[in-house]
Amino acid sequence: MSTFNYTHIDEAYENINSKILKTPLIVSEYFNKLTKSSVYFKLENLQWTGSFKLRGASNKINQLTEKEKKRGVVAYSSGNHAQAVSYASMLNNINAKIIMPDSAPTIKIKNTEKYGAKVILYDSYYESREKIANEIAYKEKRSLIKPFDDLDIIAGQGTAAKEIFDDLQKKNVIPDIFLCCCGGGGLVAGTSTYLKHKYPNIDCYSVEPDDFNDTKISLEKNKIISNDMRLNSICDALLAKQPGDVTFAINKKILKGGLSVSDKEVKDTIIALAEHLKIVVEPGGAVAASALFNKKINIENKKIIVMVSGGNIDPSLFSKIIKKNNATD
Amino acid sequence: MSTFNYTHIDEAYENINSKILKTPLIVSEYFNKLTKSSVYFKLENLQWTGSFKLRGASNKINQLTEKEKKRGVVAYSSGNHAQAVSYASMLNNINAKIIMPDSAPTIKIKNTEKYGAKVILYDSYYESREKIANEIAYKEKRSLIKPFDDLDIIAGQGTAAKEIFDDLQKKNVIPDIFLCCCGGGGLVAGTSTYLKHKYPNIDCYSVEPDDFNDTKISLEKNKIISNDMRLNSICDALLAKQPGDVTFAINKKILKGGLSVSDKEVKDTIIALAEHLKIVVEPGGAVAASALFNKKINIENKKIIVMVSGGNIDPSLFSKIIKKNNATD
Repeated sequence: MSTFNYTHIDEAYENINSKILKTPLIVSEYFNKLTKSSVYFKLENLQWTGSFKLRGASNKINQLTEKEKKRGVVAYSSGNHAQAVSYASMLNNINAKIIMPDSAPTIKIKNTEKYGAKVILYDSYYESREKIANEIAYKEKRSLIKPFDDLDIIAGQGTAAKEIFDDLQKKNVIPDIFLCCCGGGGLVAGTSTYLKHKYPNIDCYSVEPDDFNDTKISLEKNKIISNDMRLNSICDALLAKQPGDVTFAINKKILKGGLSVSDKEVKDTIIALAEHLKIVVEPGGAVAASALFNKKINIENKKIIVMVSGGNIDPSLFSKIIKKNNATD
Repeated sequence: MSTFNYTHIDEAYENINSKILKTPLIVSEYFNKLTKSSVYFKLENLQWTGSFKLRGASNKINQLTEKEKKRGVVAYSSGNHAQAVSYASMLNNINAKIIMPDSAPTIKIKNTEKYGAKVILYDSYYESREKIANEIAYKEKRSLIKPFDDLDIIAGQGTAAKEIFDDLQKKNVIPDIFLCCCGGGGLVAGTSTYLKHKYPNIDCYSVEPDDFNDTKISLEKNKIISNDMRLNSICDALLAKQPGDVTFAINKKILKGGLSVSDKEVKDTIIALAEHLKIVVEPGGAVAASALFNKKINIENKKIIVMVSGGNIDPSLFSKIIKKNNATD
């Protein structure tokens, strides 16, 4: 797969479409009016396990041999990939171990365990999750299911764009802009590959938290730059240290550029999406909509696809964010 | 339209389908497993204005003559019909006055005003909204847009079932059960008319709050029975005094029976839908799902359509309900 392209995504879709939800692409008159543009929200927060990650995990696990399946899998993840790997493993009777930071949202840890995986917590300040996972993979002969830097994962995530394309075709819409959240860059790499093939004039952007804008900076400098990992953000799903080698090689060819948003902008977006789109979105899942609402690029009179990537937010945090809105209303 | 049937709903859909959102029909692996059934959630909370009411209001306003449109409209509503009439009037440059109870959720009053209607608040304990609206209609020669007891409204609401049918056809699914919220009975009358025509063996049920189960009781006694209006419920959208003459005539022919749920069950359902389906649902919009989750009828191994009718809940109440879950978690 050295020349990764849309055909790998079509193949992935053939493999996984019966194991995932075809998520809706939603138009909101309210947000169209507000932004003076035509917005198409892709609701991957409605995806089973609560995020797009099920697409990549299902595609990767689908590639394993029977022998590999018997030996089990191991993965590391802040939470959404963890749930997806655990769920896809459950469906395939595969023993799964998942390395998660002890700071991960409770809902993500609980759900990962609920689907049957053994969760191993680590201290993200002092330990390396990659090292722990690699050791387990080596010692126990388990297959490592990487969170993003793997072409089968990227192809799986890209299937969200195949569904977007199918839905836009029915409406005879040619989109101008695609805004997509970015942690390690797997989702934006896969989906942008597909969309750019179907719509050569589309401008695709990664969107990250302000202090974790490694893809944005790396795109600007044309080389991989790391984040300062002493910083923090509410967007727990987007705190990768740096772009992946594989994802960055794709993204630097395809993306028009990188955008970033503040935690405050993300919180306001979570409120707006709950109040006007009636959906529950986690911080990392709200950054693309946040870039739109805060007009990080010129969007007027454009047709814009906005990825809403996940909805796994702790009820206590969600309640607090929504309540704050009401207090200041 | 004395012999109201599915053709009126197909006609209504022709009239309004460009003015509404085709809302998604969603499957959740989580809830399928939990209920041991196959559930199809119709997400009318994602409908523009936040509820299905836009369908009926759009269809009714579409029937007005140019002269009637110039004279303006008047409506009474606890909130969702109010927003829908206000929004549809705005699109048609129609002057609208809406009579709303002073106890209506703030979000509903604010949104009704935002779309441009003049809101007139009344005290629901001492005043009759019908009387106020009829007086205004008479004095100002405005067309009265009734909330449910009108065949154009019922046909409009029924279009949600046309979309459900189209989506189920693609999946080759024949549903066994339809659960639908019920206030005055317009939505359940319209949608059940359509579904019963397409699936003669389907069992359609109205679902109401325990203390506002007038349709349930009326079906059992085969005559219209009123609620005790001194009682209250969290389901502000479902507090009609009694079934409509028109809606009940339809519902008593078509429905298998009536179900009801407690406010506590509704709150737990709002939490479950936020946590596992990632959607924001108002109390009245959650009763059908609540009847399912609390197994008010035998649902195992059945294919069940669940109407999620609206999402207009005050952020403060929503936050409180979600937070409570976390506290007891």
